[in-house]
Amino acid sequence: MTGSWEQRFADLWQALLPVGRTPAGYRRYSWTPADEACRAWFRAAAQARDLPVETDGNGNLWAWWRAPGADGPAVAVGSHLDSVPDGGAFDGPLGVASAFAALDLLREEDFTPARPVAVAAFTEEEGARFGVACLGSRLLVGAIAPDQAAALRDGDGVSLAQAMTGAGLDPGRLGRDDGRLAGLAAYVELHIEQGSGLDGLGAPVGLADGIWPHGRWRLEFTGRPDHAGTTRLADRHDPMLPFAAAVLAAREAAFRHGGLATIGKVIAEPGAANGISASVSAWLDARAPGQAELDALVADVSHAAHAAALGHGVSMDLRRESFTPAVSFDPALRDRLAGVLGAAAGAPVPVLPTGAGHDAGILASRLPAAMLFVRNPTGVSHAPDEHASEADCLAGVAALATVLADLAGA
Amino acid sequence: MTGSWEQRFADLWQALLPVGRTPAGYRRYSWTPADEACRAWFRAAAQARDLPVETDGNGNLWAWWRAPGADGPAVAVGSHLDSVPDGGAFDGPLGVASAFAALDLLREEDFTPARPVAVAAFTEEEGARFGVACLGSRLLVGAIAPDQAAALRDGDGVSLAQAMTGAGLDPGRLGRDDGRLAGLAAYVELHIEQGSGLDGLGAPVGLADGIWPHGRWRLEFTGRPDHAGTTRLADRHDPMLPFAAAVLAAREAAFRHGGLATIGKVIAEPGAANGISASVSAWLDARAPGQAELDALVADVSHAAHAAALGHGVSMDLRRESFTPAVSFDPALRDRLAGVLGAAAGAPVPVLPTGAGHDAGILASRLPAAMLFVRNPTGVSHAPDEHASEADCLAGVAALATVLADLAGA
Repeated sequence: MTGSWEQRFADLWQALLPVGRTPAGYRRYSWTPADEACRAWFRAAAQARDLPVETDGNGNLWAWWRAPGADGPAVAVGSHLDSVPDGGAFDGPLGVASAFAALDLLREEDFTPARPVAVAAFTEEEGARFGVACLGSRLLVGAIAPDQAAALRDGDGVSLAQAMTGAGLDPGRLGRDDGRLAGLAAYVELHIEQGSGLDGLGAPVGLADGIWPHGRWRLEFTGRPDHAGTTRLADRHDPMLPFAAAVLAAREAAFRHGGLATIGKVIAEPGAANGISASVSAWLDARAPGQAELDALVADVSHAAHAAALGHGVSMDLRRESFTPAVSFDPALRDRLAGVLGAAAGAPVPVLPTGAGHDAGILASRLPAAMLFVRNPTGVSHAPDEHASEADCLAGVAALATVLADLAGA
Repeated sequence: MTGSWEQRFADLWQALLPVGRTPAGYRRYSWTPADEACRAWFRAAAQARDLPVETDGNGNLWAWWRAPGADGPAVAVGSHLDSVPDGGAFDGPLGVASAFAALDLLREEDFTPARPVAVAAFTEEEGARFGVACLGSRLLVGAIAPDQAAALRDGDGVSLAQAMTGAGLDPGRLGRDDGRLAGLAAYVELHIEQGSGLDGLGAPVGLADGIWPHGRWRLEFTGRPDHAGTTRLADRHDPMLPFAAAVLAAREAAFRHGGLATIGKVIAEPGAANGISASVSAWLDARAPGQAELDALVADVSHAAHAAALGHGVSMDLRRESFTPAVSFDPALRDRLAGVLGAAAGAPVPVLPTGAGHDAGILASRLPAAMLFVRNPTGVSHAPDEHASEADCLAGVAALATVLADLAGA
């Protein structure tokens, strides 16, 4: 290893930047060539630091720093490497690169951890290929059944089991891994902020308070395909019309209940410009400050979609595809981190709620977990414009090293 | 040739049925393997009847019956072989198969035509691959510029020029063909009815009155991609919302102006279930009894889409992609056919208007053209449920033979 930790962080970042980049943003979907290149980057980073790497049964990566004398359950830091379609460079990779850099910083300071330290990269956090967010961590804690996960299919009909087999892994090993969880004392995930809260507060780094309950619902409108030029309005069963009503109802319901509702994916079949659709499938992403508000929001959308479908002679089915209850990160861990970070910075560190799900939120059901956020002045997320300055990224690495020194110290 | 004309018609039909069939319907897109199989079927049918085949510069197929002594401009009968996505078996192929069968019937009756007779199959009538309906006939009459057509691209970015070159044709030959048009006295297209008008009247066969003016408009809503879980409602520029408003406005405008409006194709990019869309592209199919009503309908949709886009901080662009003015089929030809068909049937033949475009409507700008419709009891069109009974198909063949005997007779 040569160069300062700052230089090595910059090198790590530059090496990853070209992977999966398209003119419209990043496309790093699980178990694709771009994902394999991300995994190769992870292995190279670990090898350069003498950290043995293992891939767990769910496809998550772990690089281990077992210093002489280190003992007891480990402290894990990391994030994920996959992206949403046309995503930005920071969401996920920043946390993994920062984890390696925090180790560099600690070693540069001759810090010797009293516990094992792991750098983790979880699989399919975005759910962009198989439709279930945080799939790798959900499998690890047993929040999704392994056979259910194995049968998930991507847009081309390829199952997760097939994709993993193609990558040389055994889908028979999918599922809850209590031994691994028992070996972990805590998990800390660093992530670019997905809004502009820190920018408003003038702070480069913050801590997560909790995660809103949130989930994904599939709306399936089934009508009757017909010719656009010959079918009378009165004879139509056009599923596009109740779908449109549901889009507008979701926005109204989100406003009414103080939450968020988004329909960003829609598939009209057969998709002919001169034909009435046979079916329209749409995905509702809904989030709210509490469970009652979220339930009311989704009930309002369901009611409006059913009523509109009825009016157009179309059938409607609404089904929950994924769900994450409200997460309150471990208060003792959060207060401890706030203490050491505040002391290091000489000022209190902001604590922020978020509507976004994360692997840390999934792991929080089984072990103390926490999150650090790095300032994102644009506030843009899941798009190429998301950005953190180099200075703020380095501040994030330093904060993560401070946290690690505390949690893995003697 | 062996067997009755009815049997030979059934054989033709059975031979074509498996081509391009998928579980959801037919996918016979121009210049694909399914299309090539349709063309091979056409060539085999012509060869079995000793009809030489030529492919014109625009990719349209012509099979020629030049009886001894036949002279002067030809009478052409036919339709198309390509399909919409997941279309039915009858739309297009019924007209081509019926044309061959009508020749069989006339030969069985020892009829000798005084003029050449052609069976035609036009390319890309549905516009399912390259987005412009009636492309083969539009090129033939010069209604679209050859370089504009050559540059049209399919969903995978393949141009028409590339696709034709791949099929062994020279795209340099694309374009208006006055010599060919001058050699045609009339074109008669038989087609399954795309509504249930004939069923209501209890008639197996009818004649077309005219075609409503109709066209296709592309609506492009451009917003800002963002994270569905962290972007406040007030900060969003979500193009899905004004798109939904436009869908509902189109239906209202169609009702208001006595026309038809359909949005059957929509593409949301990047298409993440947990992301706000960057853009939504949609295609409006609009038709009305007259030009004034159609103009008013489209203006209403444009106004509503612009207003909704403005309200959501989204930009909106509406552009006409294709258009066909009102078509009145040649009255003299229609009256002549009504006369011979009424005399053959012993009852008046219904005359129906239609909102659907056809190659006959394109050719009507250059030569006398007419259409026969065959009863479709379901009224369904552009979908697998479209259907005509065998008896009605044979009635259609007989009507087409009656028409041919009159137009190509001494």
